Amino acid sequence: VPIRELTSIECANLIATGGVGRVALCSHDGPRIYPVNFAVLEGVIVFRTSADGGLGLGLRNDPRIAFEVDQLEYQRQRGWSVVAEGTVEPVEDRDEIAGLNLRSHLIPWAEGSRNLLVRLTWQQLSGRRVGDW
Amino acid sequence: VPIRELTSIECANLIATGGVGRVALCSHDGPRIYPVNFAVLEGVIVFRTSADGGLGLGLRNDPRIAFEVDQLEYQRQRGWSVVAEGTVEPVEDRDEIAGLNLRSHLIPWAEGSRNLLVRLTWQQLSGRRVGDW
Repeated sequence: VPIRELTSIECANLIATGGVGRVALCSHDGPRIYPVNFAVLEGVIVFRTSADGGLGLGLRNDPRIAFEVDQLEYQRQRGWSVVAEGTVEPVEDRDEIAGLNLRSHLIPWAEGSRNLLVRLTWQQLSGRRVGDW
Repeated sequence: VPIRELTSIECANLIATGGVGRVALCSHDGPRIYPVNFAVLEGVIVFRTSADGGLGLGLRNDPRIAFEVDQLEYQRQRGWSVVAEGTVEPVEDRDEIAGLNLRSHLIPWAEGSRNLLVRLTWQQLSGRRVGDW
């Protein structure tokens, strides 16, 4: 099955619609992964979490993340994966929060408080496509 | 949408069939994520990679990983996610490698050498289910 590196523009297009991604971070006890739903706004990935949950506390400890989005069909052996890397910041501006709260992708599925909005301005964006897609 | 913690037995059942997962590790430059296909054999996650690629070199540097598998339907706001955590080891026994090479899940999709077989005996297995699934 052929594999191809994607350009950063191709990567940006693939994740532009938002959806579900996975945040990897380094905790004191090693790597952690958390699935989140996210939106992309003007080249910035935004997601929401709980400030006092594992993800929120982990980001406070070390704000560097790798953020992965993929669409991989195991049966057909094809798909793509995009990874954005960089350092997150909390979104703290009230107007900005109010605007982001209207984005459907940022309404969390799961019950419980998700009071921390986080922004990733990626420093690196890379991806691969496998098989015919 | 309701969210429920899964028991470790439920988690083990969800990932038992193998498929596609994501390996998170901590590199010198922060967290990294790599998608891989994997199999589960007697409670152990096995995957294959290239010894001199980013994942292989990263594991040599720090063999602790978080391994995530999920099935998340964005449109329906439902799904599940399972994370296994622990320290990986290379599979080096020739007979064991020969046996693993016959497992279809461990035949890599993508072209290129994948000469490193890796075993994760998880120390922790946790997961969540969101929505009606």
